[in-house]
Amino acid sequence: MKDAIKPRNPQGFRDFLPEAMLRRNAVLHTITEVFQRYGYEPLATPVLERHTTLFGNYGEDAEKLIYTARHGSSKREPLAMRYDLTVPLARVVAQHESQITFPFKRYHIAPVFRGERPQRGRYREFWQVDADIVGIAGISADAEIITLVARIMQRLGFPQFVIKINHRQLLSAIGAFAGVASHQLPGLYRSVDKFDKIGADGVRAELTERGISAEAARRMLELLQARQPGGNSLEHIAELIGKGDNGIEDLRRLGGLLEEAGIAKELYDFDFTLARGLGYYTGPIFETVISQPNLGSVTGGGRYDNLIGMFRRQSLPTTGVSFGLERIMDLMDKLRLHPAGQARTLVQLLVTVFSPETRAASLRFAEKMRAAGLNTEVYLDTRKLGRQFAHAEKKGIPLVAVLGPSEIEAGLVSLKRLRDGAQTQVTLAAAAASAAELLGNG
Amino acid sequence: MKDAIKPRNPQGFRDFLPEAMLRRNAVLHTITEVFQRYGYEPLATPVLERHTTLFGNYGEDAEKLIYTARHGSSKREPLAMRYDLTVPLARVVAQHESQITFPFKRYHIAPVFRGERPQRGRYREFWQVDADIVGIAGISADAEIITLVARIMQRLGFPQFVIKINHRQLLSAIGAFAGVASHQLPGLYRSVDKFDKIGADGVRAELTERGISAEAARRMLELLQARQPGGNSLEHIAELIGKGDNGIEDLRRLGGLLEEAGIAKELYDFDFTLARGLGYYTGPIFETVISQPNLGSVTGGGRYDNLIGMFRRQSLPTTGVSFGLERIMDLMDKLRLHPAGQARTLVQLLVTVFSPETRAASLRFAEKMRAAGLNTEVYLDTRKLGRQFAHAEKKGIPLVAVLGPSEIEAGLVSLKRLRDGAQTQVTLAAAAASAAELLGNG
Repeated sequence: MKDAIKPRNPQGFRDFLPEAMLRRNAVLHTITEVFQRYGYEPLATPVLERHTTLFGNYGEDAEKLIYTARHGSSKREPLAMRYDLTVPLARVVAQHESQITFPFKRYHIAPVFRGERPQRGRYREFWQVDADIVGIAGISADAEIITLVARIMQRLGFPQFVIKINHRQLLSAIGAFAGVASHQLPGLYRSVDKFDKIGADGVRAELTERGISAEAARRMLELLQARQPGGNSLEHIAELIGKGDNGIEDLRRLGGLLEEAGIAKELYDFDFTLARGLGYYTGPIFETVISQPNLGSVTGGGRYDNLIGMFRRQSLPTTGVSFGLERIMDLMDKLRLHPAGQARTLVQLLVTVFSPETRAASLRFAEKMRAAGLNTEVYLDTRKLGRQFAHAEKKGIPLVAVLGPSEIEAGLVSLKRLRDGAQTQVTLAAAAASAAELLGNG
Repeated sequence: MKDAIKPRNPQGFRDFLPEAMLRRNAVLHTITEVFQRYGYEPLATPVLERHTTLFGNYGEDAEKLIYTARHGSSKREPLAMRYDLTVPLARVVAQHESQITFPFKRYHIAPVFRGERPQRGRYREFWQVDADIVGIAGISADAEIITLVARIMQRLGFPQFVIKINHRQLLSAIGAFAGVASHQLPGLYRSVDKFDKIGADGVRAELTERGISAEAARRMLELLQARQPGGNSLEHIAELIGKGDNGIEDLRRLGGLLEEAGIAKELYDFDFTLARGLGYYTGPIFETVISQPNLGSVTGGGRYDNLIGMFRRQSLPTTGVSFGLERIMDLMDKLRLHPAGQARTLVQLLVTVFSPETRAASLRFAEKMRAAGLNTEVYLDTRKLGRQFAHAEKKGIPLVAVLGPSEIEAGLVSLKRLRDGAQTQVTLAAAAASAAELLGNG
């Protein structure tokens, strides 16, 4: 006999058993509902993209992490597994433009793949939950995306979160004002993006390594951290660096629109140290962080007006956000945000089988309960009733139905609630209502 | 300026734009609901599996189609993209056994990948929709799976379908009875599986090519096609090949259980030419075909009691079914089974913006409608009202709200239903109810 294959996931890849899936699906259901309330519609793209679609859009460091795939002895250029949902959106818009009504507001929930070094809380396959607006150049689109993020974070029950907001043009303006040469400006973002991880000193060291003068780096970091305690950081930085095409007016209008949409001031914050790592952003950028305790970011996004232009002669203005589902699930577990009493199983009723002779009656009864909308399992093995009750107990099924010979003869069924032993014997016609009552009442 | 990248899917891979996704999601919602009513719970596994998990379980022909994937300059053995959801289930059960309550009834909805030659209706990434029961050796589990299939096909609205049922042991018994040598029996299934495509003569030619005598092949094909017009094929074949460990008793009991569950006789049929291609089946096998017009099979499944044994010293009895989502969608399109009046968009209400000065009122009103449960889009651009109405028209949004300066001053909103021009002006407090009425009526 052949040795058994060791059952294992590849490193960085996970299974989700039913109990975990019920929690995941509940969270996705909440997020999807908010997306739909705001008029976003579902899109799906394949896991595999052409090599040329993905490579060249993320930067070298990211592209080392892209998985490529081929089958059999195919000699063709390998395909590439999607790295995020943003570049596929840009491709889709360029490819199917004539079938799309603009503004195109879509959501997309799907796994993406990155060959990162696996570590606690970081996976090689992880789900992204994206919402984007294609075709609106105005800041009203960015404001709607941020509103959407705030509403979702609230609906999920996060007690303390802040949406940090910055602007790529403002970052460049701050750099230029501090004396960074213009050809060095695009390289700033990746260094500034590490602010939360390596701090001001770390960023300063990286900037000087990149050939920026010590004086310019010092001035720039001072400006990035400019805050007016209890005041308006935006007006403060405006005073410091003066007027110009620096994104400040965009951010002012953004703040106004958030206020109009009823987003409380403490839910967002203009933070000039926010940079976002990816190359393609062109305007406002934003990230949601969980403050108290400081648990890092759960969403990231911004405006990327040039990306669709990679696939189409003329680009289209686009802004959007990506929620990290794994991070959200980990944090909701940690902060115990899942609804109290969330069931371990979605099965509501176990219909026992008394003996082979009564199986037909149990099957018929189960079909009745299913038709009435109850999630119903019929016990499929032939075991004593005690074992059948133990199965319900173990699995967390709240209600058990017994149809013994005497019950069947009388046209009755016994229902028992396991939590407290509450029990009732009712006619088959009244069973669905009785079951619902036993399930619904405290 | 760099040339634009041509926006294209790899051959055999597809995008689903919102309108297609709404239909897909509606079908998946129906199927999932039936799964849950029968007590099946969700499971998810990663797209990528270890090479050793997949290779060696499907047979050589299938394994040529498996995609392998690696990232960057990794020198390790490549990973493998899942080929179906069955082998991953077997791995999961062996790997997480201690966390699973048996019988384990799970459903799994996910894309799988096969590098087949692309052709009409056949894709390289396609979604499977699986339900399986692990841990029940008795035929009651197979009966439940077939019941589930019948209920789902009915709920989806297929007017004419037949679930063909056969048994791997019966196929072997027929072969042995016809004079096929025992070492040649396992090779039979792949040839018999082509019956629908290449007919009796084609199968006979293949069997003789495999070294089976012409006489044995002739007798076997005669038996496979044994039917009693208007009668019971099962008792007919039992008479022809006699008693023994030949699966007939299993199929008899299966028929009895289907009757007990209330499945009409015309919905299933014992058909001895059904073989299923894959190697791992060990007991009853079944397939759903759309008859009149003959449109091929939309589900396939059966019992595979030895597969989990590939990953675990002792195997566990398992049976299940796989629905082909792409085939189901294609057939529902062809047979026009989607509900009449299925909306082109899930957006129910477009809130127009009269002028920059009234945007705040429109935003606040939209938030109110969303809170009341209406899928609401706010017009994000600054265009004349006519253009905004045209957008709703083009997208298929049924209802449009106008808040002009005079309405705002009076605390009113105008609602207009585009289909028939029905219009009303109501207070903000009454707007949600009026909108629901306009959406629901006529």
